[in-house]
Amino acid sequence: MPNPTAAMLVIGDEILSGRTRDANMHHLAGRLTEAGIDLREVRVVSDDAAAIVAAVRALSDAFDHVFTSGGIGPTHDDITADAIAEAFGVAIDIREDARALMAAHYEKSGLEFNAARLRMARIPDGAALIENPVSVAPGFSLRNVHVMAGVPAIFEAMVQSVLPTLTGGAPLISETLRIDRGEGDIAGPLAELARAYPDLSMGSYPFQRDGKYGANVVIRGQDGAMVREALARLGEVFAR
Amino acid sequence: MPNPTAAMLVIGDEILSGRTRDANMHHLAGRLTEAGIDLREVRVVSDDAAAIVAAVRALSDAFDHVFTSGGIGPTHDDITADAIAEAFGVAIDIREDARALMAAHYEKSGLEFNAARLRMARIPDGAALIENPVSVAPGFSLRNVHVMAGVPAIFEAMVQSVLPTLTGGAPLISETLRIDRGEGDIAGPLAELARAYPDLSMGSYPFQRDGKYGANVVIRGQDGAMVREALARLGEVFAR
Repeated sequence: MPNPTAAMLVIGDEILSGRTRDANMHHLAGRLTEAGIDLREVRVVSDDAAAIVAAVRALSDAFDHVFTSGGIGPTHDDITADAIAEAFGVAIDIREDARALMAAHYEKSGLEFNAARLRMARIPDGAALIENPVSVAPGFSLRNVHVMAGVPAIFEAMVQSVLPTLTGGAPLISETLRIDRGEGDIAGPLAELARAYPDLSMGSYPFQRDGKYGANVVIRGQDGAMVREALARLGEVFAR
Repeated sequence: MPNPTAAMLVIGDEILSGRTRDANMHHLAGRLTEAGIDLREVRVVSDDAAAIVAAVRALSDAFDHVFTSGGIGPTHDDITADAIAEAFGVAIDIREDARALMAAHYEKSGLEFNAARLRMARIPDGAALIENPVSVAPGFSLRNVHVMAGVPAIFEAMVQSVLPTLTGGAPLISETLRIDRGEGDIAGPLAELARAYPDLSMGSYPFQRDGKYGANVVIRGQDGAMVREALARLGEVFAR
């Protein structure tokens, strides 16, 4: 059976302006690969309701799972929860279990549970909460869309909360061979090998390090023995 | 008048699998912001022709400019140029000026200009080449889509080549000088030259080839005579 597919939607003007470098995409990509879920597409859009709604609808239709990052904090530009509700045509309001969790947390920590913080208890109808062990204000899953915070420590904790609830596939076995030749010298033998192993995926990732050209050739597949066999054949070509 | 809008399309399985952390999005975001071009959306897709074609068409229709990163190297999984040609319904073939540039470069550097490397001279009909001062194999612009390599040093040099053509002002004159010294030797004189010519833009793109360190220094400006004068002064410094 093919692995489930996924897309990610990163929401935030600060990424698009170059002010902040996104870290969540790389984290999620690694976690999904471990879980046997194929991340097929990522989109980054600004804090704009129409852009978020359009992206959520497109990605939710096209993939098994959608993971969002950003725009669920307490400030006026955090509009992700409302945009998700709009995308699916459901109502959104303060939800009692979310409010109670947050009230207990702020009570204990001495922080004021003000109107801004209360906005974070607004959850679209029909959603399941995603636990946030870092700062309590929850994320949520609505249909196949998992809505999480953008702050990396919180995003990562929410991914940790939601991933075990999803059915993954067979994890991909991946082996890498570093070849200290220009990619143009590697391309021919690699293409030949790719034709010989149609069930494996092969990629070449060139680098220039300390002034030297080379490439990391990565071979991936669900059959570990086949992956290692192909890698050994490639190694023989360049050992000559 | 509102700023022109832009989108970026990052192409590469290695980003989506979590193997590689993308660096080009953050770089481009900063450069576009400096240039007064609004980056509105980024998409990351895999090395899959249908996914690239669909994203190119959607982004090219919706935004003034589209910048792509990745998939234009010599290996079998580098399919971006073909996908761009398909997206716009134009033919693609080896282009003589690109081939000649690369032949001269490989001749000088002693690398074999084999079939894999020749693939990098395949350019869609009607495209303009984007200069690559790092490794010569060019990018290209077709309509409003600017197609660049994924290796960060090359991507950044190509952005540097193409951005000045998008300002809508007088065309920028660009001259390149290859200097066979380590970049640490070049930095001092280059900084001094940059202070002496505040109207010119100067960039240095280091390489190590056949064990030798060097850099291509690119000088750009709107006054061609001034660009050539500055280049001559730099040449004198390193002729000593």
